[in-house]
Amino acid sequence: MSRLLLNCDIGESFGNWTLGLDAEVMPFIDCANVACGFHAGDPSIMRQTVSLALKHGVQIGAHPAYQDLQGFGRRSMAYTPQEIQDLMHYQIGALEGICRAQGTRVSYVKPHGALYNDMMAKPAQLRAVMQAVAAYGDLPLMLLAKSDNSEAQAMGDEFGLTLWFEAFADRAYDPKGHLVSRQLPGAVHHDADTIVQQALTISRGQALTASDGSALVLQANTLCVHGDNASSIAAVQRIREALKPA
Amino acid sequence: MSRLLLNCDIGESFGNWTLGLDAEVMPFIDCANVACGFHAGDPSIMRQTVSLALKHGVQIGAHPAYQDLQGFGRRSMAYTPQEIQDLMHYQIGALEGICRAQGTRVSYVKPHGALYNDMMAKPAQLRAVMQAVAAYGDLPLMLLAKSDNSEAQAMGDEFGLTLWFEAFADRAYDPKGHLVSRQLPGAVHHDADTIVQQALTISRGQALTASDGSALVLQANTLCVHGDNASSIAAVQRIREALKPA
Amino acid sequence: MSRLLLNCDIGESFGNWTLGLDAEVMPFIDCANVACGFHAGDPSIMRQTVSLALKHGVQIGAHPAYQDLQGFGRRSMAYTPQEIQDLMHYQIGALEGICRAQGTRVSYVKPHGALYNDMMAKPAQLRAVMQAVAAYGDLPLMLLAKSDNSEAQAMGDEFGLTLWFEAFADRAYDPKGHLVSRQLPGAVHHDADTIVQQALTISRGQALTASDGSALVLQANTLCVHGDNASSIAAVQRIREALKPA
Amino acid sequence: MSRLLLNCDIGESFGNWTLGLDAEVMPFIDCANVACGFHAGDPSIMRQTVSLALKHGVQIGAHPAYQDLQGFGRRSMAYTPQEIQDLMHYQIGALEGICRAQGTRVSYVKPHGALYNDMMAKPAQLRAVMQAVAAYGDLPLMLLAKSDNSEAQAMGDEFGLTLWFEAFADRAYDPKGHLVSRQLPGAVHHDADTIVQQALTISRGQALTASDGSALVLQANTLCVHGDNASSIAAVQRIREALKPA
Repeated sequence: MSRLLLNCDIGESFGNWTLGLDAEVMPFIDCANVACGFHAGDPSIMRQTVSLALKHGVQIGAHPAYQDLQGFGRRSMAYTPQEIQDLMHYQIGALEGICRAQGTRVSYVKPHGALYNDMMAKPAQLRAVMQAVAAYGDLPLMLLAKSDNSEAQAMGDEFGLTLWFEAFADRAYDPKGHLVSRQLPGAVHHDADTIVQQALTISRGQALTASDGSALVLQANTLCVHGDNASSIAAVQRIREALKPA
Repeated sequence: MSRLLLNCDIGESFGNWTLGLDAEVMPFIDCANVACGFHAGDPSIMRQTVSLALKHGVQIGAHPAYQDLQGFGRRSMAYTPQEIQDLMHYQIGALEGICRAQGTRVSYVKPHGALYNDMMAKPAQLRAVMQAVAAYGDLPLMLLAKSDNSEAQAMGDEFGLTLWFEAFADRAYDPKGHLVSRQLPGAVHHDADTIVQQALTISRGQALTASDGSALVLQANTLCVHGDNASSIAAVQRIREALKPA
Repeated sequence: MSRLLLNCDIGESFGNWTLGLDAEVMPFIDCANVACGFHAGDPSIMRQTVSLALKHGVQIGAHPAYQDLQGFGRRSMAYTPQEIQDLMHYQIGALEGICRAQGTRVSYVKPHGALYNDMMAKPAQLRAVMQAVAAYGDLPLMLLAKSDNSEAQAMGDEFGLTLWFEAFADRAYDPKGHLVSRQLPGAVHHDADTIVQQALTISRGQALTASDGSALVLQANTLCVHGDNASSIAAVQRIREALKPA
Repeated sequence: MSRLLLNCDIGESFGNWTLGLDAEVMPFIDCANVACGFHAGDPSIMRQTVSLALKHGVQIGAHPAYQDLQGFGRRSMAYTPQEIQDLMHYQIGALEGICRAQGTRVSYVKPHGALYNDMMAKPAQLRAVMQAVAAYGDLPLMLLAKSDNSEAQAMGDEFGLTLWFEAFADRAYDPKGHLVSRQLPGAVHHDADTIVQQALTISRGQALTASDGSALVLQANTLCVHGDNASSIAAVQRIREALKPA
């Protein structure tokens, strides 16, 4: 995979509540991380989301989360590794069920929110996630690109997993390739030119400037973009244009 | 399918709460109707249940329900036909995800509780259920055997569905083959001999005596048995023995 | 109570999802029907909602519902009368707990969605609702004003309840004072002048023109208004202005 | 309060699932910690539980928890202090609503499971819990008795709270008065004589032998007992008898 795929969290509405401009962002992305009902999404929202992805030829990824609708899956919860595997199989399968009814399949897995953060912070959680994906079938796992992906890659190799490393065009990085905390100033880029430039830099394999001024090269397969509002849609559209093959 | 399969609701525990003697009844049944998390069961309970079924070579059926944990899926809810399809795809898929992680598959579908009752009472709900099962793939649908299954069979034929009609050994029937309401006296048989005898009668295609004294022949493929307590386990064991091929 | 109070459904956000322009509509209403967590609202949303109501001197009403977050409490569910009482005591109390922490109280009760509709359609459900409110304490119950409120009033008298009958300025009525179904043409008024005129007519105790052309006088204590979007806010503001004492 | 009150977790059934021998243990206890729907209990179970407590003249305590039905409130969750206050007000109020309908009141508060453990481990969580109880009204808070309660007492004094410290007759203690982890051998006493003797020792203000052999005096107002099964009921009955005033 040489081209930088654009992935986006999608299908985060629930029942009567709407969140995100799914129809507006879908034309510009490659991979839709579809909420599976534990932090957002419900069976009917998921059907509509899969249908929209199909219409635009976008790959459908399962976006499993801790079971916490009120907290949107963003609160860490003390799940055991076995429970993590179970909730992932349940949610990936549930989305697959919705996909099958429309003649398509789940193409990859990206954990959501606190499950994603815990997986990147704790090897035992990462191992549980990888074991879950490997046991389910032949799906790539999306996780955070750092300056050195070798540990995650080694663990992925144990399980025979394909890993898709993702980078962010709108976030500042520390020297090790971790995202700078949103609590700190300068953590999130709001200027569209800066965002598009960072996307291009990552896609060319060139060095970003980390928060301490050092050079940081991220080995990334995919870029996480956002469909929250009109300005994030505009940024995605510009990134899509900028990344076009010459 | 000439032999009368024994099916049983299984995996109805939830989190810290245990319900049913799953390990005790599993050796004597052919088909386990596994709760999928909407009325009972959770991802970890489902994993344990699938594992137990596998150990005993029992077929795994999805047992989808209305989303009503407090009501155990037994309260009718005003879902639209589309919503019914969505919740069925979600739940069948979720169980399939748990199954895939153990190298097995969902083998059939039996709706639970109020979803089952509504499907038998309202053609629009039955149509939604059938459409859901047909769209998912090549799975048989289990539903109630009546004196005349032709209407359900005709609708099933429209969708190219295999139907498994189920009968009850421990329930009294009215002349049309509906179950006598549990509110009425004599609705449920408690005597083990009576239960085993009714199982045998149904398996031989002979006539039962309906609540008005008339003869009632049920065309059934499967018999619903129960693993609630020691006496229902004993009844299942005797039915299993009685139905053995000579 | 001689003045026509304006009541509005409020606090219908949930977790990460926002719904309704609560801050914009609050200055113009008298009574806030606060969601209690079963169809919308969560403990933190409820705290913010109560705080906003307090700031504007608006009465806080409990808005209990069937437990159906995905369906927003709009799907009828087969609860028993006893279960209806239990869920009402739970939800009224929960809102009261949030209120106490801010030094205020629940002032009245208005059932939501399918619970409201079922209560107006089925005497057994209305009786359960009234019994629940009476057993809780000394709170008025809000329900639909019809051309003849005598049956509801008689039942309310049995329980010693204060009843607040509500009318709608933006809905067409049939001759008996039932709302014309939203499925039918002309059921909802969209023109602001029409809405304000209907509010004035109701407030003066004058006759509306029902859907068959007949005259319909509603005996109403309160008018239900909406804070969904900018145009409904504008309508509320105009109604508020129009109903001002001379 | 000179006598050692017996408190017990009660009302931990949910919907169709039964847990605990509530009716059997209720005659022997003083304080019932009633589940409030977030980890166990539902509005109808709560009504039955309150009714049972009333019948036996047992004080009703709110037993609020993190919102995690599958995990029975035992998994730590990353709630903010504000969210902890909100969920406590909601749950205490909900139980109070059920109580009011039966003419009674909530008498104290004891956090459940992971909320209890987090409160004992993290001062910020304890402060949130205390602030929540103080804002609600004039209720005592139950928490773990240690060898030195002065820190908790000082914080409680800030909020003007009455604190009820609880000890365990069936658990081993470390020298500081923390419970020995259930993972370690000897953490739980199973011998009835040992349990009754430890209850007597605590009630007399005498020293227990901690896990390292040192003497440990617990300043306790209440003893936590269990109604899980027949043998724990028998132990409660013996403790009740042993603690009787001469």
